[in-house]
Amino acid sequence: MIIRKGHTAVDRGTEEDEHKYGSRESLLLSEEGGLTQFVAHVETLQPGSRSDRHWHEEEDELLYVLSGEVTVVEEDGPHTLHPGDAACWPAGVANAHQVVNRSGAPCSYLIFGSGAVPDVIHYPEREEVLRAFEDGSWRIERTDGTVVKEGREP
Amino acid sequence: MIIRKGHTAVDRGTEEDEHKYGSRESLLLSEEGGLTQFVAHVETLQPGSRSDRHWHEEEDELLYVLSGEVTVVEEDGPHTLHPGDAACWPAGVANAHQVVNRSGAPCSYLIFGSGAVPDVIHYPEREEVLRAFEDGSWRIERTDGTVVKEGREP
Repeated sequence: MIIRKGHTAVDRGTEEDEHKYGSRESLLLSEEGGLTQFVAHVETLQPGSRSDRHWHEEEDELLYVLSGEVTVVEEDGPHTLHPGDAACWPAGVANAHQVVNRSGAPCSYLIFGSGAVPDVIHYPEREEVLRAFEDGSWRIERTDGTVVKEGREP
Repeated sequence: MIIRKGHTAVDRGTEEDEHKYGSRESLLLSEEGGLTQFVAHVETLQPGSRSDRHWHEEEDELLYVLSGEVTVVEEDGPHTLHPGDAACWPAGVANAHQVVNRSGAPCSYLIFGSGAVPDVIHYPEREEVLRAFEDGSWRIERTDGTVVKEGREP
């Protein structure tokens, strides 16, 4: 099944996300192609935008830079990546990572994940943990165990 | 973990592969990054080179064009893809596919797969089936069931 450039469903996140993290656009390639065994998106960050710093207990992730200059912040600090550079985050390694566009132009990268569920996702700066369960439900807790929010995937 | 362009292990296949399919280079990104939940490689085909036409019973696959002109042959014929175009092959859909470089310059693409095992891979042109088992062993059979070759992953 062929998916032409510009013919993919786009996710721009919520207004709340945009306010917090800046403008981000995700092309939902894997969903468009009817794939269920992994998640593959093309993300574009406008200057100043960023993702939420996190790491997964159960999901392998890979980022591959397509265009522009991408700053990847890991536990050991920031790294400036260019097209053809990549970053890999094996499941269970507590290397919290964040993608930031510190440049003056948009940057794009492919992001892949196994989509492993159940999963526990750690957000050290927010001092929160997201628990995702097999039945599609999820729960955000503070690191002291207090429940912040609960829900279920549609 | 950051993987800089040009600092990835490269697989050029066997001499037999090169003789049969032409010159192909695979950058083993997922292996380099210690990922085990999916397979992610950057492949470069020289002009005239091709992959083996096949489909998977159990593995989702995704191809994303990075540079050059890539011809993807599916059941409905050839499609010419350019950077930003993609192809998705959900597991179990009998849409045998092949990647060919019919252009005069090298072409590159990212190829992702879930690496699902056990799997059964069909090669309609060779009239062969590859069965991959959970213990790392595999068996190539002709479509009439005759065993062609057996082995085990190292």
